[in-house]
Amino acid sequence: MPEFLELIPPQEALKTLLNRYDPLREVEIVATECALGRIASSSVIAPHPLPSFSKSTVDGYAVIASDTYGASETLPGYLKVTGEVLMGAVPDFSLSSALCAVIHTGGLLPEGADAVLMLEYAQPVQENEIEFYRSVAFGENVIYVGEDVKSGQEVIPAGIRLRPAEIGGLMALGITKINVFRKPKVGIISSGDELITPDINLTPGKVRDVNSYTLSALVESAGGVGMRYDIVPDQIDSMIASLKVALDECDMVVITAGSSTSTRDYTAQVINQLGPPGVIVHGVNIKPGKPTILGLCAGKPVIGLPGNPVSALVIASLFVVPVMEVFSGSHRSFPRPKLTAQLTKNLASNAGREDWVAVQIVMDESISSTYYLAEPIFGKSNLIFTLARADGLIQISADATGLAAGDAVEVVMF
Amino acid sequence: MPEFLELIPPQEALKTLLNRYDPLREVEIVATECALGRIASSSVIAPHPLPSFSKSTVDGYAVIASDTYGASETLPGYLKVTGEVLMGAVPDFSLSSALCAVIHTGGLLPEGADAVLMLEYAQPVQENEIEFYRSVAFGENVIYVGEDVKSGQEVIPAGIRLRPAEIGGLMALGITKINVFRKPKVGIISSGDELITPDINLTPGKVRDVNSYTLSALVESAGGVGMRYDIVPDQIDSMIASLKVALDECDMVVITAGSSTSTRDYTAQVINQLGPPGVIVHGVNIKPGKPTILGLCAGKPVIGLPGNPVSALVIASLFVVPVMEVFSGSHRSFPRPKLTAQLTKNLASNAGREDWVAVQIVMDESISSTYYLAEPIFGKSNLIFTLARADGLIQISADATGLAAGDAVEVVMF
Repeated sequence: MPEFLELIPPQEALKTLLNRYDPLREVEIVATECALGRIASSSVIAPHPLPSFSKSTVDGYAVIASDTYGASETLPGYLKVTGEVLMGAVPDFSLSSALCAVIHTGGLLPEGADAVLMLEYAQPVQENEIEFYRSVAFGENVIYVGEDVKSGQEVIPAGIRLRPAEIGGLMALGITKINVFRKPKVGIISSGDELITPDINLTPGKVRDVNSYTLSALVESAGGVGMRYDIVPDQIDSMIASLKVALDECDMVVITAGSSTSTRDYTAQVINQLGPPGVIVHGVNIKPGKPTILGLCAGKPVIGLPGNPVSALVIASLFVVPVMEVFSGSHRSFPRPKLTAQLTKNLASNAGREDWVAVQIVMDESISSTYYLAEPIFGKSNLIFTLARADGLIQISADATGLAAGDAVEVVMF
Repeated sequence: MPEFLELIPPQEALKTLLNRYDPLREVEIVATECALGRIASSSVIAPHPLPSFSKSTVDGYAVIASDTYGASETLPGYLKVTGEVLMGAVPDFSLSSALCAVIHTGGLLPEGADAVLMLEYAQPVQENEIEFYRSVAFGENVIYVGEDVKSGQEVIPAGIRLRPAEIGGLMALGITKINVFRKPKVGIISSGDELITPDINLTPGKVRDVNSYTLSALVESAGGVGMRYDIVPDQIDSMIASLKVALDECDMVVITAGSSTSTRDYTAQVINQLGPPGVIVHGVNIKPGKPTILGLCAGKPVIGLPGNPVSALVIASLFVVPVMEVFSGSHRSFPRPKLTAQLTKNLASNAGREDWVAVQIVMDESISSTYYLAEPIFGKSNLIFTLARADGLIQISADATGLAAGDAVEVVMF
């Protein structure tokens, strides 16, 4: 049996692929209110300042600050109330010395005013007059025109993922449409003579296709569009035909099963036939998922994953998702946040190989509400419900020979 | 000006609401392949075992383990090859002593066989005979019927959120439809005389509605359906009319602006009118977001948020999202994973009040690729682009008077 000539560390394998990958991104225009999670394809410039007028940040009285100097609890000051600033309107008066105006949070600062006295430091003493008990500084409780954003300022750089805050900011500027990169379309091909679709009754020897559904869900949760293709038998011509169609219709393709090195494993051959360059990496120093293939056909990534559902899902999150992120054009991404927990059992691992172990999170209520235990799930690694019982994965790095019970571990929740 | 009589700590405020909230959940049937992120409304029982037949986990030869005992590199054993197990098929032969059969990963273990010898420990010596160099134990490289899941076993408990692994597991069992709780519909009402819709040109004093878009995006990202209602003016009758419609059509309602205590703040009055019980909490000991209202009208939560977009978004993530989670019926949820980073500046905070501070994450490449700095974003807290520039929020707990530069902080990424 041909064995892998060399096993490449996972990070290096990914870099090797990405170094040769220059995605052709397309741009589309979407309504800003539907753009959650999309990546801006060009920078957005503010068409006007924000706020667009100077406004009060509190409920109170618009004043001229110098009129208030020296006022205190024991020596109150007095001002005439000349009017009220109505919300959403421009006041039809201006302030001069010894005058003030009722103003609400967000109200437009009247001409002449330069500060706002909070309501709680004043009280009406007679009609149209207030008594107040402290001074306010110039500019106090006021936001000026352009303090958030200046006209012409770049507010969204290209490559930024749009979150609720960005969507709100765009709406504040009246930008109701935005250019974004198209979502990556990821073709998913499950191969194997034993596979049937999930709606069919099982007969001995047959197995329902799992991978195209788990991978499609993973792709969706990572912001892409999963395109499932028909199950292909273990025949090189069928696989080539299916991969051709998928490459034509998608931005990248994932093939499950057939990624190892036995005579019945055709994925590498198929990728090489549809290259160049074809297969770039075959065999990664990781468990689960050693027989992983990273390739490029006509500029589009093709990733061959092991057929067992657990390996396929773990490896896809380590290779397919990062490739999708590169395609998406995101310029600012962080590693997935993790949950810190305490490992409950010793875990052995081969030095030189990166291991990923499924864990269940147990909240230890006896200690504190934010204290978590990570309980490794043992069991054969290719059982899908073993993974379904897990809350996340922990990594044992290649330079470690294991982890000890009691170690703090970072759990990637999935 | 009426002030808040008492400010309740955020966690206690949420509990006070949830203690009185008994959501009426509805169930719907969805295709399993479309159920990502949904919550199972009833437990799922395996209709048959998984795997459904005993199978090989490797490429090699199905054998009777006892036939292999004693074999080694120096003293190989020999077996006749009686046939090949075709993928997806039941072999038309059985094994008896001194016989073996070619088998592939996932192939059905032939009758009589009880272990699989890996391909790399054997080689053909003549047609239909192999030489092999090690013994295999009973059951080695075999997964038995039901090792993943037994027939009748609960595979998905009620209240579980469906991730890619659960979807795959259900497909493996042929369960292509599943009962899930309906997604929460969250009505969103922005109020204020100064508000206009984002498509309208600004005139002095007017401000474009931001909150209904940021909150709708937040609701969507938390797995709900945001239903935006028309902007309502600061008039009690209009607000009552709008809230009535929203309560009728939605599972919970969020109203922004008008949540404070001045004479123009009607939200509390409106919620009380449409109770009972109406307002349950008014005023939370948190910054930003002190003037927050938590209420119940006819069994449905109504949450009044401050009008300023930053407070509204931060408070919604602390109150609206957890209420949505309770509605969703999820029985197993963890706090959002966080990114650990090192604070770059001192941050002051009032003891007794929980503060949330926006930070930008800076990767410190000089130290290691997994070392992050959290750079607080200063600036007036109600500026939406201040938040858009942030990568996440850090919490300063109520019992702290601040955080020091160099402290490790947990950043909630958003």
